[in-house]
Amino acid sequence: MKLKELAAELGLSQTTVSRALNGYPEVNEATRQRVSEAAQRLGYRANVSARRLATGRAGAIGLVLPTEGNVQFGPHTNEYLSGVAGRLARDEIDILLSPLETDDEIPAFKRLISSKRVDALIVGSPTLADPRVKFLTEIGFPFVLHGRTEVDKPHAWLDIDNGGAFFRATSHLLDLGHRRIAMINGPAGMTFAEHREKGYRDAMLARGVTPDPRFIANGQFTDETGFRFAQSFLEQNPRPTAILAGSMMTALGVFRAIRAAGLTLGQDVSMIAHDDVFPYLNADNMVPSMSTTRSSIRAAGNRIAELVLQVLAGKPVEQVHELWPVELVLRESTGPAPRD
Amino acid sequence: MKLKELAAELGLSQTTVSRALNGYPEVNEATRQRVSEAAQRLGYRANVSARRLATGRAGAIGLVLPTEGNVQFGPHTNEYLSGVAGRLARDEIDILLSPLETDDEIPAFKRLISSKRVDALIVGSPTLADPRVKFLTEIGFPFVLHGRTEVDKPHAWLDIDNGGAFFRATSHLLDLGHRRIAMINGPAGMTFAEHREKGYRDAMLARGVTPDPRFIANGQFTDETGFRFAQSFLEQNPRPTAILAGSMMTALGVFRAIRAAGLTLGQDVSMIAHDDVFPYLNADNMVPSMSTTRSSIRAAGNRIAELVLQVLAGKPVEQVHELWPVELVLRESTGPAPRD
Repeated sequence: MKLKELAAELGLSQTTVSRALNGYPEVNEATRQRVSEAAQRLGYRANVSARRLATGRAGAIGLVLPTEGNVQFGPHTNEYLSGVAGRLARDEIDILLSPLETDDEIPAFKRLISSKRVDALIVGSPTLADPRVKFLTEIGFPFVLHGRTEVDKPHAWLDIDNGGAFFRATSHLLDLGHRRIAMINGPAGMTFAEHREKGYRDAMLARGVTPDPRFIANGQFTDETGFRFAQSFLEQNPRPTAILAGSMMTALGVFRAIRAAGLTLGQDVSMIAHDDVFPYLNADNMVPSMSTTRSSIRAAGNRIAELVLQVLAGKPVEQVHELWPVELVLRESTGPAPRD
Repeated sequence: MKLKELAAELGLSQTTVSRALNGYPEVNEATRQRVSEAAQRLGYRANVSARRLATGRAGAIGLVLPTEGNVQFGPHTNEYLSGVAGRLARDEIDILLSPLETDDEIPAFKRLISSKRVDALIVGSPTLADPRVKFLTEIGFPFVLHGRTEVDKPHAWLDIDNGGAFFRATSHLLDLGHRRIAMINGPAGMTFAEHREKGYRDAMLARGVTPDPRFIANGQFTDETGFRFAQSFLEQNPRPTAILAGSMMTALGVFRAIRAAGLTLGQDVSMIAHDDVFPYLNADNMVPSMSTTRSSIRAAGNRIAELVLQVLAGKPVEQVHELWPVELVLRESTGPAPRD
């Protein structure tokens, strides 16, 4: 299919169609969507190199990935990138990954931006006062944030409702009679971890239960961390009767610690884990099956790629804010609190 | 530290040090290694942008990732990329990921090469007669292959000894008295899967056991595939007493099928799985612990990044061939064959 045919099909001028496909801000969002959908449906493909020359764009979105520090390249990154890649593939846009030995991403941003190799950035895992968001809003470079920060400058973001998810999970455990509820959270200072802790605390306090600081732990999302923290929790007397796990990897370690202590998951100790939906770690297939707060990180990556394209097409960043609800899925790992 | 100081420390001219760091082929490999190690030890960092301008290099290595077809973005990709990223971070070299909707990578290669955005490519998951290797050797663009192909043109590669690994694993099961040994392999036609099947067949035939075609299956490395194939194997009469699983994800599904059939892993049915060493799926921590053929795909990614840099520094590709041995680690999932 040629540009001419696509334009005829849509009843638009070739110029408008071309501008819509190239993300010019003169074309409004509704038209851009309509053109983009028709192009996809009818199998129209612009000549990518020609389009890049014409628009002066790099045709790549940048992601900086620290190999050290709080947020490392891990299974979450993979699912997430896979979602981003799925959306960008449709427009033949590449991903420029900049691996870093430190966790100071700003110099890497400067390098990517000054060398004009990326059109926009995707920024992940923010802290409550994220310096990267401050930097990028100040220089006015396009980006979408995965997560939230309290930096008070307009910027585009997509986040899941971590606070709400952990409020609900904790409330459910309280409904089941649990009072000593432990939590293995992500690294302190990260917004998602702070939101989760707040959700947990709010739920406890709403029932007049004071959270026990010995039962709150922060760390990386690994099997080892889950095992170590759960083991130390289970050595306390009295021990917790329920554990919230920050990830499915953490949950595997917690499960192991419960088993190693001769206890039964879902009876002696209940667990709810946060599930980012890894295809190879299916909560339904575990024995016992795992109760989870669930939100697909792949879907988030896919949507963020779409939002980046919208920002590049001129959508005001103040209008690019998405907060996704999180499901609570109850399975066999949660049961009534055992009698003391 | 300045270039001048680094040169003085090494007793070399600034020109030689600069050329070594920039990968000019005039500098021999031993000197390049020495300079690179000293630079890292002493914390010397060249000005990356200046270096790029001087060398005319893009400062990025390309990887094309199909989102459809036999080889998809999955947990293996993640560990592998993570290894690649770890090595490239040291030299501030980026990774240009080109996600693809099809599995025809050659047009994407052409696009990356003609736009001069990558200095070299990393090519993965080859078939026995891989058209990508044929294409890249013909046009003479630098690349390193992860895996092997029978394309008879000089090229750089790193592979693990898949044939040897499955020969040993199968031989061990035969030693334990197993005769009906099933195999859940990767997609047919992929070199690694063909090598594994050959290793398995050779081991069986060496003991006079004819492999039963009903017990050989090919598919993606997922929990679902493992479950489905294992379930169909276990419905046969007589059923296999041992199963070789192509990945840890496959193994999770096989384990589930064994449990669902009311059988005990390590007693009624033995299993050896191939373990690419995912930090969150530790074979030691499973119950029962899993016997594996083990080779870290992250380590392979890390080494491949180093080999790419060597190729870019002028090392002849005929000298860049590495075949890594694979360990057989025996744990509780393997036991003597049950009596019929």
